[in-house]
Amino acid sequence: MAEKYFEDYDVGAVHTTTGRTITESDIVVHAGHTGDFFPHHMDAEFARTARFGQRVAHGTMIFAIGIGLTAMQINPVAFTYGYDRLRFIKPVYIGDTLRTRVAVKEKRDDPKRAEVGCVVEACEVLNQRDEVALYCEHILLVTRRSSVLEPLVQ
Amino acid sequence: MAEKYFEDYDVGAVHTTTGRTITESDIVVHAGHTGDFFPHHMDAEFARTARFGQRVAHGTMIFAIGIGLTAMQINPVAFTYGYDRLRFIKPVYIGDTLRTRVAVKEKRDDPKRAEVGCVVEACEVLNQRDEVALYCEHILLVTRRSSVLEPLVQ
Amino acid sequence: MAEKYFEDYDVGAVHTTTGRTITESDIVVHAGHTGDFFPHHMDAEFARTARFGQRVAHGTMIFAIGIGLTAMQINPVAFTYGYDRLRFIKPVYIGDTLRTRVAVKEKRDDPKRAEVGCVVEACEVLNQRDEVALYCEHILLVTRRSSVLEPLVQ
Amino acid sequence: MAEKYFEDYDVGAVHTTTGRTITESDIVVHAGHTGDFFPHHMDAEFARTARFGQRVAHGTMIFAIGIGLTAMQINPVAFTYGYDRLRFIKPVYIGDTLRTRVAVKEKRDDPKRAEVGCVVEACEVLNQRDEVALYCEHILLVTRRSSVLEPLVQ
Amino acid sequence: MAEKYFEDYDVGAVHTTTGRTITESDIVVHAGHTGDFFPHHMDAEFARTARFGQRVAHGTMIFAIGIGLTAMQINPVAFTYGYDRLRFIKPVYIGDTLRTRVAVKEKRDDPKRAEVGCVVEACEVLNQRDEVALYCEHILLVTRRSSVLEPLVQ
Amino acid sequence: MAEKYFEDYDVGAVHTTTGRTITESDIVVHAGHTGDFFPHHMDAEFARTARFGQRVAHGTMIFAIGIGLTAMQINPVAFTYGYDRLRFIKPVYIGDTLRTRVAVKEKRDDPKRAEVGCVVEACEVLNQRDEVALYCEHILLVTRRSSVLEPLVQ
Repeated sequence: MAEKYFEDYDVGAVHTTTGRTITESDIVVHAGHTGDFFPHHMDAEFARTARFGQRVAHGTMIFAIGIGLTAMQINPVAFTYGYDRLRFIKPVYIGDTLRTRVAVKEKRDDPKRAEVGCVVEACEVLNQRDEVALYCEHILLVTRRSSVLEPLVQ
Repeated sequence: MAEKYFEDYDVGAVHTTTGRTITESDIVVHAGHTGDFFPHHMDAEFARTARFGQRVAHGTMIFAIGIGLTAMQINPVAFTYGYDRLRFIKPVYIGDTLRTRVAVKEKRDDPKRAEVGCVVEACEVLNQRDEVALYCEHILLVTRRSSVLEPLVQ
Repeated sequence: MAEKYFEDYDVGAVHTTTGRTITESDIVVHAGHTGDFFPHHMDAEFARTARFGQRVAHGTMIFAIGIGLTAMQINPVAFTYGYDRLRFIKPVYIGDTLRTRVAVKEKRDDPKRAEVGCVVEACEVLNQRDEVALYCEHILLVTRRSSVLEPLVQ
Repeated sequence: MAEKYFEDYDVGAVHTTTGRTITESDIVVHAGHTGDFFPHHMDAEFARTARFGQRVAHGTMIFAIGIGLTAMQINPVAFTYGYDRLRFIKPVYIGDTLRTRVAVKEKRDDPKRAEVGCVVEACEVLNQRDEVALYCEHILLVTRRSSVLEPLVQ
Repeated sequence: MAEKYFEDYDVGAVHTTTGRTITESDIVVHAGHTGDFFPHHMDAEFARTARFGQRVAHGTMIFAIGIGLTAMQINPVAFTYGYDRLRFIKPVYIGDTLRTRVAVKEKRDDPKRAEVGCVVEACEVLNQRDEVALYCEHILLVTRRSSVLEPLVQ
Repeated sequence: MAEKYFEDYDVGAVHTTTGRTITESDIVVHAGHTGDFFPHHMDAEFARTARFGQRVAHGTMIFAIGIGLTAMQINPVAFTYGYDRLRFIKPVYIGDTLRTRVAVKEKRDDPKRAEVGCVVEACEVLNQRDEVALYCEHILLVTRRSSVLEPLVQ
């Protein structure tokens, strides 16, 4: 655990996670986890003749694994408010290797609460050809260091 | 499979899925599936003293299972463009039972392609007390019946 | 959910499910789920020299997944009594794609209860070459519409 | 591995497997493995008001686990032909402990092949109150010792 | 279950388990089970350029599966005290088939308790080329037959 | 990733991981992953009357999860040689919360290779009452900074 306060986020700062290869097994697990057994994901015969010519990963899996890759370091003073502009840009196939690039896109005041600020991280889930498979904006509410330190200042 | 064209979506139409109880097992599976082993989800001792007083479900799981519940009937003429305004409104605890209410919120032209229209579904993942745990807007691109029928009209 | 009463079943009616490709992952999951780690399923070296020349799917898995494929639409007035004549006709290999064809084979009175009838569905689990891998007869007890409507008739 | 020939099966011989407690986790795994997410198994709220007052195990799971419990000792000269009279007699609930009692019920010639005989095992999957939850008859084709020894006799 | 007392272990006695092929699915399961998503196991692109040229199985998995292969016959009068000299000798790759050779290496008195003796089993997890992938010494505490029989001797 | 060379390890340095609650689901997964379905782990009825009065976690699972908890930060210049003195000291029950305390116990030269040194970490897997459930010594081979810098010194 390492505290990272609102003031500690720099717009433009970028980091990239380690990679993870998407396996047939992940697709089987995701279908079983969510109940989505649509043939685009599960039926190799159907998929061969469909739009992408092979089975594709569930969109919800690319999101869940792509965001999971960023869950390395706990920041106890930040929490997730939500996600905006989640887009599935390229299909992900069995054998693709994903990693997530996170860039601090924007910082803004929270209209309701003075003690936190809002940080927007642009998340790109990239494949092994550096193509963006998924894009989304992660909205974090982060405690301001100033709000914590005030009592000490007195 | 049942084709449902752009013209067949009625703004205001609502349907609700069957329910599914979120188990400790689902949280264990989701951690293992995504690699997110944060103690908020996995450490009952830590969670007891933290914000919600108990382990909470991963946000990405509420989304993946909530959307998975809607994957009952394949519509071969629609596909997912993305999601907007994904918000985690109430925490989900072990033993909560979720179902998803889907309302057609908006229909609009697709600026780039005449043969499809854009349908926005407001998705609410509800718990057993009818509280909204997660909200998001599902953006679908749906083939227009007119574009398919035109050749026949000739 | 959609009620389908005894009277609504037509002998000879047939429907076929969507398909699902049997993966190495499914075999690993089934072994772990049931505790059956026999080398016919789990040991590629052994299987290479054995009867079928490669690992084969567990019979209980072909049954469980083949029947699972039919679990799409809940009929709240029918319930499973049992299965007869379950036969493993062709081995299923990793990569085979299964779907299930269900035909209403027979309708008969239930000797013990007037308010239900007995429906027998012939289930064939087919592979991608349309060969029958598994055959069984599913025995359903289904409420008679007449028994439900009687009070109203009065 | 231990060869057990047709001649070695004694009608009336009985053995009982070790036990296994059916957990909520097993039901989650089975739903994900088969795609059967019916609320009788997965929705505690629904199940509370339904026939059995709580979630029940899938019939296909009782069968697969009940038979899996018997997969302890490989008999390389026997293979499964099928199952007859599979019946779901008592519901299985989360926390029930199952074991399987196998009795040699019948031995008969195989009409098509002289070198094997047909053995029928009556399988009862019992719960912790010794109630039969599932009954089925396992049909084995087993090599006759005589057919193997004949060349030696010459 | 079959009791095997301290006196029943013969130094030098050897047995070998059935085999099991290590699949990509096993690695995915092990990562999810333990939380170890290091790219040596999970990232095919990284692994291609790293030391072994491909993804390798987790050491803890080779141990857990290698020892699991020996869990066939319960000995109710023996229990595991620990393991010594656990060594990872050869990497295990996806598709390798493992089996475990167990040799009784040593028998000695337990310094603290007269009623049990200490048995050391040398365990070698072998691949399909008979190379030792993992070596460890399993230390068992086993009841002495003499201690059980004494009351009877009276 | 962060390089930590042999010289960077300080004997006596200690760190403790985050915690993880062992669930019934973990035991079910571990049995399925390893094939060890012994009733001590899987049969609540049997376990109630046995030594510990309830189901206990597999030893191999405590090891695999306990070590997995330490897999947070990749050190590309260290690799695992093996483990010594692995001992199961206290049973782990469903609901126990584990974390791992790692102390650098010893540093020594590697007799065979000058460019690496050997680091021994004493690992204690602790439960929520700070009792040691498992102890082992992790032997690492770590590149010496001096061996890497030598070319630069020239």
